[in-house]
Formats: sequence, structure tokens, C-alpha cells
Amino acid sequence: MYRRDTRHKGYPFMHAYRTHTCAALTSDNVGDTVRLSGWVHRIRDHGGILFIDLRDHYGMTQVLCDPDSAAFADVEKLRSEWCIRIDGEVKARAPELVNPKLPTGEIEVFVRSVEVLGASKELPLQVFGDQEYPEETRLKYRYLDLRREQMQANMTLRSDVVRSIRQRMWDQKFREYQTPIITASSPEGARDFLVPSRLHPGKFYALPQAPQQFKQLLMVSGFDKYFQIAPCFRDEDPRADRSPTDFYQLDMEMSFVEQQDVFDTIQPVMAGVFEEFGGGRKVDQEWPLISYKDAALWYGTDKPDLRNPIKMQDVSEHFKGSGFAIFAKLLEQDGTQIRAIPAPTGGSRKFCDRMNAFAQKEGLPGMGYIFWRDQGDGMEAAGPLAKNIGPERTEAIRQQLGLGVGDAAFFLGGKPEAFERVAGRARVVIGEELGLTETDRFAFAWIVDFPMYEKDDEGRIDFSHNPFSMPQGGMEALQGDPLEVLGYQYDLACNGYELISGAIRNHKPEIMFKAFELAGYGEDEVRKRFGGMVNAFQYGAPPHGGCAAGIDRVVMLLADEANIREVILFPMNQRAEDLMMDAPSEPSNEQLRELRLRVLPPES
Amino acid sequence: MYRRDTRHKGYPFMHAYRTHTCAALTSDNVGDTVRLSGWVHRIRDHGGILFIDLRDHYGMTQVLCDPDSAAFADVEKLRSEWCIRIDGEVKARAPELVNPKLPTGEIEVFVRSVEVLGASKELPLQVFGDQEYPEETRLKYRYLDLRREQMQANMTLRSDVVRSIRQRMWDQKFREYQTPIITASSPEGARDFLVPSRLHPGKFYALPQAPQQFKQLLMVSGFDKYFQIAPCFRDEDPRADRSPTDFYQLDMEMSFVEQQDVFDTIQPVMAGVFEEFGGGRKVDQEWPLISYKDAALWYGTDKPDLRNPIKMQDVSEHFKGSGFAIFAKLLEQDGTQIRAIPAPTGGSRKFCDRMNAFAQKEGLPGMGYIFWRDQGDGMEAAGPLAKNIGPERTEAIRQQLGLGVGDAAFFLGGKPEAFERVAGRARVVIGEELGLTETDRFAFAWIVDFPMYEKDDEGRIDFSHNPFSMPQGGMEALQGDPLEVLGYQYDLACNGYELISGAIRNHKPEIMFKAFELAGYGEDEVRKRFGGMVNAFQYGAPPHGGCAAGIDRVVMLLADEANIREVILFPMNQRAEDLMMDAPSEPSNEQLRELRLRVLPPES
Repeated sequence: MYRRDTRHKGYPFMHAYRTHTCAALTSDNVGDTVRLSGWVHRIRDHGGILFIDLRDHYGMTQVLCDPDSAAFADVEKLRSEWCIRIDGEVKARAPELVNPKLPTGEIEVFVRSVEVLGASKELPLQVFGDQEYPEETRLKYRYLDLRREQMQANMTLRSDVVRSIRQRMWDQKFREYQTPIITASSPEGARDFLVPSRLHPGKFYALPQAPQQFKQLLMVSGFDKYFQIAPCFRDEDPRADRSPTDFYQLDMEMSFVEQQDVFDTIQPVMAGVFEEFGGGRKVDQEWPLISYKDAALWYGTDKPDLRNPIKMQDVSEHFKGSGFAIFAKLLEQDGTQIRAIPAPTGGSRKFCDRMNAFAQKEGLPGMGYIFWRDQGDGMEAAGPLAKNIGPERTEAIRQQLGLGVGDAAFFLGGKPEAFERVAGRARVVIGEELGLTETDRFAFAWIVDFPMYEKDDEGRIDFSHNPFSMPQGGMEALQGDPLEVLGYQYDLACNGYELISGAIRNHKPEIMFKAFELAGYGEDEVRKRFGGMVNAFQYGAPPHGGCAAGIDRVVMLLADEANIREVILFPMNQRAEDLMMDAPSEPSNEQLRELRLRVLPPES
Repeated sequence: MYRRDTRHKGYPFMHAYRTHTCAALTSDNVGDTVRLSGWVHRIRDHGGILFIDLRDHYGMTQVLCDPDSAAFADVEKLRSEWCIRIDGEVKARAPELVNPKLPTGEIEVFVRSVEVLGASKELPLQVFGDQEYPEETRLKYRYLDLRREQMQANMTLRSDVVRSIRQRMWDQKFREYQTPIITASSPEGARDFLVPSRLHPGKFYALPQAPQQFKQLLMVSGFDKYFQIAPCFRDEDPRADRSPTDFYQLDMEMSFVEQQDVFDTIQPVMAGVFEEFGGGRKVDQEWPLISYKDAALWYGTDKPDLRNPIKMQDVSEHFKGSGFAIFAKLLEQDGTQIRAIPAPTGGSRKFCDRMNAFAQKEGLPGMGYIFWRDQGDGMEAAGPLAKNIGPERTEAIRQQLGLGVGDAAFFLGGKPEAFERVAGRARVVIGEELGLTETDRFAFAWIVDFPMYEKDDEGRIDFSHNPFSMPQGGMEALQGDPLEVLGYQYDLACNGYELISGAIRNHKPEIMFKAFELAGYGEDEVRKRFGGMVNAFQYGAPPHGGCAAGIDRVVMLLADEANIREVILFPMNQRAEDLMMDAPSEPSNEQLRELRLRVLPPES
């Protein structure tokens, strides 16, 4: 050995910075001489004695210094968030001063000497306490913000969740493979980030929106079971639950599988993670499969929150030819329906009027309603609708919806596309206002049978979701009405969020070309845009499928945060800027010259 | 439940694609009806019976079909690399046909029916066999190349190595944190890849050359122990052991540590990985610490291969005022030395002349040598040098180098900077040619005490390595001769490669500004270029340090590959192009317009 550090300065056999972390000392250490390093969390003067809460990543230890100590003058100079090292002696706290909430609450350390490792300027943001700061301040001084207890907890949670996901995927015999990041455009439908090439001026790489093509190429390469905690890049406008630049997905793909195999593989992984980190919140073990069509009818969305028990229903037949002329006339048009939102315990005029106002705020003419009340000699159905359609129809509706005294139901009519989303939002509000929606629970559902195609605004057939999914029924299905074709495509919904999206892929070139042809894309264009994958499929492609889960959303749900930036270490702000690092910034002329690029003035 | 897949077509209770993998069947399965899926690795006709080696990710199974089988006509149509599914019956092979090298070598499967899952066009590259192909072909059809046995082995090795690294870091109480990828320029000294911003036209993000600033910010944030299998991006010209775009590092950082703490942390991780995946090759447990200066003297490089026992020595004193005028005169100049490369068992004129020729090919005038032979009545020192300096000096040299009959020594003189590297290469060649360099061994050394500064070509003081390392001796050391200042900076060398590089960081702003000042950078410029980090250090920064290990190099060494592209799934070619995915490519006008960029013509 050449030599070791001269680490034993001052105290022989003592580490240069710490003998223990700030979470380690207990009554077992009483009498020990120890060395601790950390940050001054709080400093207080109690009758001339200085008390410091010394904090590190692991915990907090109370250290103190009385005026008789040789270190007192040094300790007096310390301020919040200075990074210091102290040597001292561990003493037991008096029984009445023991803090049972702190692992180190039985002891305190009498400072013998102190060294300032890193002093601090005046703080733009306090680490101690719960003061709120504007997001811009928090992001600019993120390194201080991250010292706060909640942020430390969120980031370690995130790290532990990702670790657990990896272990669970390994346990399922998956291997993690790293796919390229500087590569070609990927067919995910959002906007690519481009990277100009220096060696090939005028040409650009793209950052992958997802490793979609690569994971499918891995299946063609015979790797059978792939996963990756994969960085993904989409140049999208920022949103509370979306990062404007890069984010991470659990991306996975398997060969020789059908849809149910993918579900059977990923469900234990996700359920396990939610069990492990859910903090005792209930994790549903039964994950129903709900068709896209049923989800739209029942919940008005393809990412329903099943903690809310309300299930909407088609009640058209009760309004056909009824005395409620608006609905009756509506139903004479093709493709119209009347749907009911049952609202158990919502049976008061006040509540019904408030929901009606909600619908109006959302841009609808309003929601008709019926509510049932006890009239002494029996149940009475109240509200204008009930009067118009008469008692028989009203009673039939009540029976269909399974409602009774004290309950209400709301009604929306028209072409479902026009009111479905508002109905879905009304369902959420009703569930919350009436306290029907459970809290402390994670409720999952697989949404399946997405339609392959839809009509766009100009009446043309286009893909409604992922063009690379295998159509149910294969080539045969593509010979009929495109709007009837369903894809082997699926989402996992949890508490109103889309957590996972995936598909069984279309691995047969001839079916893929046909599928694109229906949407108006010629073979040439498909080959041009997705050449890497299409070429590969001509050399013995296996059937395969998989999915991707958003890591940030999973952690958001577990951390009970509503904003994705609370679970990302160094997020961009809402304008996709990093004020701490000064990104994006102006390139040098030299850089632009090397890339042979010129920035044009605005409006050119 | 909504419904499950109709997976049980044909055979009830059978998976749609396989009951077993192609590595699973043994004599225990004889008599079973099974379903297998995989690729036609090889198809042979033995006396009318068709034998197929059916391959999947896990292994190979022999399936066969005789002309009486209903499936024969279908099997006859199969070709290499078609992806197929077969149903059949497991039969025991005749004892003399058992293949003990194959896990499935005891059985074969008689095909009852076959389904083509994915046919293949004519192959541009054979998967079966060892045929060599040009790299361009291999990269263009990477999905076929990756099906080959060696590539499957390399990629699964890589995946398993990364997994093992993660587990070992977790065991050391590190957490993995993900740092931003679309961010600002990082101070690693290579060229950045830029990413134009759409929301802020004219401004650019950069991809991180390493998460250097972010990991240091994490230490300032109090995270204490960080690691990441981190994607890194450097716009460098391609090389055999370097990826031209993105690559992965094991990046780690710790707070409240000295240099030896980092070594004590990472050594068990690396040693463990080499033990686990070294395939029985010897893994040195003692990792010497060698100063940068000694490494240059002894090995002529800062990444020595210690499997080679040759250690060069300074033998100047024996040539001072000696009869060998060239060396004697040389030594009268300042800063010159004569160094010897001992070559045990190299004592023949033929070998010595060959080495001399090697030095001439490397651009030196040649290497003087002495070799010792048995002259019947005693040892004789031969070669022109021995005659010139006389027997006494020759003997003194022999004794210093510890050589004897049958050995040789080579001599190089001048300013060490001028010949050190050639001497290092000569040492490698001598070690290999004489069979002195051990194979089947991993030999490690920490190279420490790198100088902080060097003189550039114009005599100016500049940083010789990482400007962010803590100078040994701190502020005090910076008051003296900059060229004498050593940094707490270190590399790990293994078998002639640099596997790890790291440092104890300079966490004190005042020392950092002083260190930059010595290299001619003002405070303003430091703040401008590294503002994120420098600002953070003003708010209570802890002492910290860490290192980064190149994943690709580790896997290269373990896989015994000389080219980094053999251990990367989808590498770029030597011109930084992906021919399979067509990257880089021309952007659309729409994309350029959104980014407000114009590509300039060449020469503008």
C-alpha cells in the first residue's frame, strides 16, 4: 500500500467527520466521546445554554454547549444551516426531558469542540418549519428546499419505489436492458426533442419519447422479457402531472404472450409496490377488466376512479316518448342517449340545484334531476323531471338505479361524446361532496378493448390510439367496418389516473400495412417513418406485447402529492426552465458554428 | 371481471404460445404433449426426417418431423430464423444420441402441428454459425446480430452486471436518485450535445456529460449517499472503447468522507462484481495506492496493467559521467533521466534487437540494452551499452534491477515527458512477448495524488485534470508553487484500462475561487459557468467526494471484448450514425420553424 489518508487528526482512531450519524445515538452511548457532522437545524438559547438540533440525512441529535465550555465562543457564532462537525460527550437526558418521538431522544451531546465545515449566507428559504414559499423560490434554491423534511421523504420514497419495482421485475425473471437515448424519432405521437449532429451538420438526432421501437426490436432479437426504468422525452407543454422535458417510465415487453399474460405479470409488481409503500392504505386485489365502452358509459372517462361507487347507466328507454319533451325529442335523433348519474344520499333540492349549477358551469344547459323523499305516507319523487314523465317511469328509473328515500339521480342527454366527459366530472364531484368516494384506498381497473379507429373532425378514419397495437381479429377484422375494430390495447387506471398503458403489438407486417392503409397511410410512408421496426418484422418476428407505467405518477399517488414537481429532484418550472442551472441558455457562436445552425429572429 | 382472453384455442388448458421454454424439457417430460415457440435455428434433413433446432432466449430443443406426420408439408416449408410455434410429444432420445452439453439433450419433440408466427425474408446475416460480417451489416441488421449466441451472452452479462452493481450499492446503504437529462451544460471538459428549446427559441438545453453538478448539489441537499446508473452524453469522436453519443456510468457521491472512505466503499462493489462475473479469473484483493508520479516512473502511464510484473526504474546515477556519451551528456541537462525497463528472460540479442526496432517505430532513436548470458566461466553482460559503461556500472545496474543470466534491460533517456509513454508501451510489449503478463487475472490499482496544475504549451498554468477537486493542503497549498499542488483526485486502473475516476471535491467557495484564479479564471467567469454549484456551496456545503465507473468498460473486460460496441445493444457506428433507425436525419421544415433554426450551407 502506498499510504492511507492521515485521517486520525486530533482524536486517534476517530473518523475525520463522524463516529455516528445524527440518528444513531441512544442511551447505550452515554459516556462515549463522539463526533457528529450535520447541519444546524435550529439553535436556541435556554438560560444561557445553547441548544442545537443537529440534522443529517438520517435524523436529528440535540447537542448543547454551556458558557463554561471552551467551545462556547465558537458555538455562539453558528447560524441555521451551517454545516458543522462537533466532538462531544453523550449524556443521558433527565427522564422528564426524554423525547420518545426521536430515536435519539434519550440523550444529548455536550459539545467539546466545533468546526465549521461550510458556513451559510442568509437563507432565502428556511429549512426548519413549515413556511410556504413560491415555487420559483423553491426551484431556484432547490438544494435548500430539498433539505426540508417532506422533500427528503418524497425523494427517498421515490428511490425506494424504483428499487422495489426493479426487484419485483427481476423476481419475475425480467432483465433490464438500456436502449439508446440519442437516436431517431419514435412514433409516440407527441413532439420530439431534437439534437443537432456536429459530425453531420444539418442532420438531427431525436430523444426517444419512449423506447417503444427499441423494446419491440429487442423482442425480434429474441430477448423475451425486457424491462427498463427508462428515461423518456416529450416536448410538451407543462402540466401539474406531467414533466415538460424528461421523465421516467417502467417500460416492459414480453414475447409469446397474450393480453392476460401481461396483466398477470405486471399486476403483482404494481400491487406489491402499493402494498409496500401505501402506508397502510387499502390496496384492491381484484382489478376488474372494463371495456373502453363500458368505462365511458359507467364513468365518463377511460381512467375512472373506482373508489367512487357511482356507476352511470343508460336510461334512454324510460324517456322515449315520455312527457319530458326535450329528452323525448332528443332520442328521436340517431346516436343519442339519456344517461343517469345515481347519487345515493344526495336527495335534497339544495344539493341537486348545486350539481345543476356545476353542469352549467361546465358548459351544459344543466342536468335534470329526480330526488326521492319521505312524504310521511310513503316515498315521493321530487324535481321537475319526475313530474314530466310521471310516476310509472320515475319508479322504473328508481328501480333500475337501485335508489330509495334520500337519494337522487341526475340526467344528461344527447350524443354521448358531447356530454360524457362532463358527466364523468359530475360523478367525481357528486362522489366527493356526498362523501361516497373512499379515501385511503388504491382502486385499480384494467381498461381494455380500445377502438382502433375513430372519425376525425372532417369525417376521415384515423387511429384513435396506438397504431402499433394488434387489431382484435387480425387481418379479418380489418376487412370490415374500421370503426368496429377493437385493439389489444389496455390502460391501468388507479384513483382517476392512468398509471399504465400498453398493448399486444401488431408483429405482422402485412396486417400492419393494412391497418395503416385504413387510416390513409401508404406502405411507403409507413416504411419511411417506422423503417427500423417494419424492416425487423420481416425477419421472423415473435408475437409480443407489454406496457409502460409512469414512475412519477406512481410516486405522486404514494406520496399523496398533487404536483409532479414534488416528487422530482430538480424539475423544470412551468415554463420548462431551470432557474438554478440557467437552462435553457444562449449557445456560444462557436457552438452554433460547429452545428452549422443559425437562430432566426422572431416572426421570420 | 369483464372477461379473460380466449387463450385456450385448440388444446384446452394450454397457453397460446408455450407450455415450456426451449431450455426446459428433460427426460421427466417424456410422454408429455407440449407447445414450444421459438426460432428455427437450423433445419436438417436426415434420411427424409426433418430435424429442427428450435431456439429461444433460454436455450435450444431438438424437434423433428417424419414424412408420415400430418405436419410434414408445413414443416418442409420452414426456413432459418422463422418464428414458429409447434405442438408435439416429448420422446426420449436413444442413449447414443443423448447430447450431454444441452440441458434438453436427453429428449426430442415429435411435431404434431406447426404454426408460423413470423416468417422471414432471406437473411442478410446468419444467426447460426460463426460467420463474420462487416460491422455495418451487423449494425444495420442488429436485431438479427443480437440473436447470435455471443451477443445474447454479452447483453445478458451486461444486464446482470448492472443489476449486481445496484444490489451492492444498496447493500452499502446508497440510494439511487435520478438527475435531469435535459438540463444545462456540465463542466466535464468535453463537448456538450445541445437541445434547442421550442418554448424559448434561440436558447438551448444541454445533455449532461455526467451528473457531476447534480450529484454535488445532492450532497449540499443533505442526501449523504447517492448513486445512479447514469446516462452520460459527450459529443466526442468515436473510438473502440468509447461510445460517440450516450453511455452509462456508475456514478456515486458521499458526504463527510475522505479519499480512503470512497476507496473502502467502492472497492468491495467492484471486486464483488469481478468475482461474480469473472468466470473464475483471479481477482486481486489487494489494490495498491500508487502516486501519479510513481505510476509514470514505474509504468509510463496512469492506467498501468499490473498483471505485467515489469517495473521501470530510474538508473540515471549509473550513467552520469559514464563512457556512454549520449546518456552522459543528456544527463547534464536539467530535468533529464535515464530509465531502465527490466526484461526478465529477455536475454537474447534477437529479442533485444526486436525491441529496439519497436522503439524506433514509435518515433524514438532506439533503446539501448544490456543482456546477461552464461559464458561458461561466469556471467557476461552483452550489448553495446555494457561495453561503453564498463563492468562495474553494468553490474551495479544489474543488481539494482535484480536481474541475472538470461535477462535483459532496456534504457531510455531524456526528459521523461518525451519518452515516458513509449516506455510504457515498450513495457507492455515486453511483458506480452516474454509471457510475463498474466492472463486470466484482474489487477487493480488506485492512482492517487494527481497534480492539480500543469504548464500548457505556452507556459501558462492550467488545470491538469478536474478543477473541482480539493487541493491537498487546502488554501495554504494554493499560496505556493501551483505545479507542486496535488489534488485529492484518483483513478482506478484495471488491466491497463481506467475504470473509475473520482475526487474529494472542493466544497469551499473561497478555495475554489482561489484555485480557478491560479489557472487564470476570474470569479465572475466561475460564477457564470458553474453558477448552480457555486451558489449552492454558499449555503452550508458538506465535505464530499465520490467517483464514477464506466459500465461499458467493466462489461468489456468481463466479456473479454476489445470493442465497446460488442457490449451495447444498439450502438452507433464509427461515424455516429444509426443505420438501422436512420439517425441522424434531416428535420422537417415544420420542426426547424418551431425551433426558429436555419441550417446553413457548408462553408458559410
